[in-house]
Amino acid sequence: MATKRNKPKNATGTGTLRLRRVGIDTYHENVAYLHRQCEIYRAEGFQALAKVEICGENDQYILAVLNVVDDEALVGSDELGLSEEAFAALGLNSGAPVRVRHAEPPASMDAVRRKIEGERLDAGEYLAITRDIADRRYAKMEIAAFLVASGQTGLDRDEVMNLTRAMVAQGDRLQWPGDLVADKHCVGGLPGNRTSMLVVPIVAAHGLLIPKTSSRAITSPSGTADTMEVLASVELTPEQLHAVVQQERGALIWGGTANLAPVDDILISVERPLGLDYQGQMVASILAKKIAAGSTHLVIDIPVGRSAKVRHMRDALALRKLFEYVADCLGLFVQVIVTDGRQPVGRGIGPVLEARDVMQVLRNDPDAPADLRQKALRLAGRVIEFDPDVRGGDGFDIARDILDSGRALKKMERIVAAQGAQQQRFEPGSLVREVKAETAGTVIDIDNYQMARIARMAGAPMDKGAGVDLLRKLGDRVEKGETLYRVHASFPADFRFAGNLVDSDNGYQLGAPDLVPEIYAEF
Amino acid sequence: MATKRNKPKNATGTGTLRLRRVGIDTYHENVAYLHRQCEIYRAEGFQALAKVEICGENDQYILAVLNVVDDEALVGSDELGLSEEAFAALGLNSGAPVRVRHAEPPASMDAVRRKIEGERLDAGEYLAITRDIADRRYAKMEIAAFLVASGQTGLDRDEVMNLTRAMVAQGDRLQWPGDLVADKHCVGGLPGNRTSMLVVPIVAAHGLLIPKTSSRAITSPSGTADTMEVLASVELTPEQLHAVVQQERGALIWGGTANLAPVDDILISVERPLGLDYQGQMVASILAKKIAAGSTHLVIDIPVGRSAKVRHMRDALALRKLFEYVADCLGLFVQVIVTDGRQPVGRGIGPVLEARDVMQVLRNDPDAPADLRQKALRLAGRVIEFDPDVRGGDGFDIARDILDSGRALKKMERIVAAQGAQQQRFEPGSLVREVKAETAGTVIDIDNYQMARIARMAGAPMDKGAGVDLLRKLGDRVEKGETLYRVHASFPADFRFAGNLVDSDNGYQLGAPDLVPEIYAEF
Repeated sequence: MATKRNKPKNATGTGTLRLRRVGIDTYHENVAYLHRQCEIYRAEGFQALAKVEICGENDQYILAVLNVVDDEALVGSDELGLSEEAFAALGLNSGAPVRVRHAEPPASMDAVRRKIEGERLDAGEYLAITRDIADRRYAKMEIAAFLVASGQTGLDRDEVMNLTRAMVAQGDRLQWPGDLVADKHCVGGLPGNRTSMLVVPIVAAHGLLIPKTSSRAITSPSGTADTMEVLASVELTPEQLHAVVQQERGALIWGGTANLAPVDDILISVERPLGLDYQGQMVASILAKKIAAGSTHLVIDIPVGRSAKVRHMRDALALRKLFEYVADCLGLFVQVIVTDGRQPVGRGIGPVLEARDVMQVLRNDPDAPADLRQKALRLAGRVIEFDPDVRGGDGFDIARDILDSGRALKKMERIVAAQGAQQQRFEPGSLVREVKAETAGTVIDIDNYQMARIARMAGAPMDKGAGVDLLRKLGDRVEKGETLYRVHASFPADFRFAGNLVDSDNGYQLGAPDLVPEIYAEF
Repeated sequence: MATKRNKPKNATGTGTLRLRRVGIDTYHENVAYLHRQCEIYRAEGFQALAKVEICGENDQYILAVLNVVDDEALVGSDELGLSEEAFAALGLNSGAPVRVRHAEPPASMDAVRRKIEGERLDAGEYLAITRDIADRRYAKMEIAAFLVASGQTGLDRDEVMNLTRAMVAQGDRLQWPGDLVADKHCVGGLPGNRTSMLVVPIVAAHGLLIPKTSSRAITSPSGTADTMEVLASVELTPEQLHAVVQQERGALIWGGTANLAPVDDILISVERPLGLDYQGQMVASILAKKIAAGSTHLVIDIPVGRSAKVRHMRDALALRKLFEYVADCLGLFVQVIVTDGRQPVGRGIGPVLEARDVMQVLRNDPDAPADLRQKALRLAGRVIEFDPDVRGGDGFDIARDILDSGRALKKMERIVAAQGAQQQRFEPGSLVREVKAETAGTVIDIDNYQMARIARMAGAPMDKGAGVDLLRKLGDRVEKGETLYRVHASFPADFRFAGNLVDSDNGYQLGAPDLVPEIYAEF
């Protein structure tokens, strides 16, 4: 009759169950498995999908979502099963006695509801919200409510600052010797924009400390960590990272192994599938990660272009002010630079092809993509000017000297060796499609989104050799039948899917030379 | 190295897997289980928690969340497992060939994102959103985004109308003979407010058609369906319901067996845990259910009181206008009545105790709670006045005559018999705590929320005999040590938890007689 109805309780269960590890991977979502005939807990009125708290005798506890099991082979009626990550998180052995009870809704949801009503939250409330999120007390729908509410009524700049500070407080913080720890960051949206792999060796060769932690690709065809991994190991422990930086002054690693502002990753796991993209959240996300990574001086690159993440100069300027305000409040020195976001940077899109571009620039290869070189030198110059001994305006020339002399290449080789050179050799995917111009004309548009989509469909970043290699860029004159770009893939299915996407829209537009869009910004 | 990263695809998988039923109950959330070594799909770059689409050869498909399995006993590497409800929904046999591919995000999320930006959505967009929700294309976090966005920027009245219409369109609609199908509904918030069980027999005895579908309790100690179930079966098929109504003109059943505005239930499953409560959503929810149930004439009861759902007359009036506007647009005739919501109605709170109150009123017992009788007669009178042959103002007297003459009792007995009399005998819980006045004084407040909480904690509605029995009401003079109310429970743990809650706050306030709050509204 009356089944599947919930009966909330403050109650603690009175009996214990034996813990069992269930061989199911539910990623970041903890799942607990209870048998339907479990005597002790039937009385609690649990139902499938209820949020429960599981505690061992060591006072360790985790929160999980409940699944009800009808199969004795999976869990018995005196057992409590946990999915793999949940089992690891609880940290007990199979057979250990555990208790289970209804989880209370997180107390900070009251503040979220007030945010939904349009109120301003204070520092204490952001601290409480991020703490509950870090403790995994928020279900994804609760996180979605928080994100939509803060995106919709907007966060004022003090709220962004308090959210940033609160996110930093939930995780670890890297410590570095000295009081100048340089960093650079791009807000994203441009395929092939691998300037970090040039800025780091140049700046480190100059002598500043630049221990760069990067992300892997989330929605893009490659993150800096994915591309660096073509050359070297990027999954270093904090101890290994410190050893590399002590020796070389610079490093390029994946930030995921350190526990830096972990709330940011949890928020992103909801923002991305929902397609939410708010300035306040972006600023808090970037600055929290940088502060947690121990950076003190940061250059931020905001590319502006029709198919970039930031489309108008006015948006870029508002974003710059917000970065400056929040960073100043938190004691981080930032320089925000608005750059040309009209098209992908360099030629390659995808880990192997991007790594090739980077190495061409470092080797002063005459074929090296000039736009990547130029942009990297300008950014590196600005970072070098953080050095109090460098005169304002001299950074670019110093960076160029370091690159032209081969010192940047040498520094990169030393960083690769220190992190551990990649043992596996990656090559561009052997399945190649040449995408040709159907008419003659001048390249007047290259759609950043579409090029990224084609590279992903071809297999990037999981397949390191997959991607797109651009032979023609904005303003280039092409004849009918000339190759615009090549698609590389390693697997036939990927190759077919990417080809279908190219057939529906190849991302290029040809036209009269005067239709090439003007550069929104130059720095 | 690079694990657990997602690789979105438009792609259809090329191979098939054998379907397997997995004995795990994941309630309304479909879960698919794939073995980590599954050859065919490793290349697809699936990851745990990805949303996938599973299709059989009959073109039937379902959406599910992916769990990755490491245990061959659960699913083999050539199998695809489905949780129980998912297996039933797909409707194929074990061993049937199935394909799995990445699910596309629902197309209507674009409209939700525009709602987040503060835009007004049109009829077609609400139709698309509700269709995708009904098809279970929305994850809970996507539903949360929709709800928060529509609550925060607000829905204008045309949007509420379009949402209501769209929710009706997704489900079935009951059909009744004749063009007057009467109904009543209370927006909720008052414990013990069981007027429907009096209004239905009175109105049916008068001769109007009143096939009332009710909900079970979601957050309250009892819904009308829970209380009616003390007397009769309430889970009738649509065919059984039609037979009862044809014979008796009235019925009191649980609406959950018919597929009426199913989107409403899905929205509620996210609203409740998030504690969201918006007028627009409430109006759409109530009216969609009523229109789907085939009602043409509806009395809506809005109790107003300090601890009721609606706290101020101005809110009640705004809500009334919104009900009227939307109902008029959709061809439903409504009469909205604002009632006294200062305290619980009648004496009992909880299924058995409420059923006792109802039967006392029907039997014209001198001990019957006068407030329940009076309120039910007024509401029944308004419903009876929908009858074109009844003169405006005469409804109350007609209702009273039907009740006083015993015709309402007889009608209720016939309805109970037609629905199937309850075979189990329920009694008030045998564990009883008398909650006594600590000082002398007049009852100046009874907190609706706290009384509901105590009744739930005592075990209502799952334990039908659990609840609270109020011996004193607003304005009553009590002496020190006199009993204010009794708590009934059947299980020691429930009894203890309810007792703890009473000790922290018993819900009553005593004071000087002139502090009894005035009645906000009378009708």
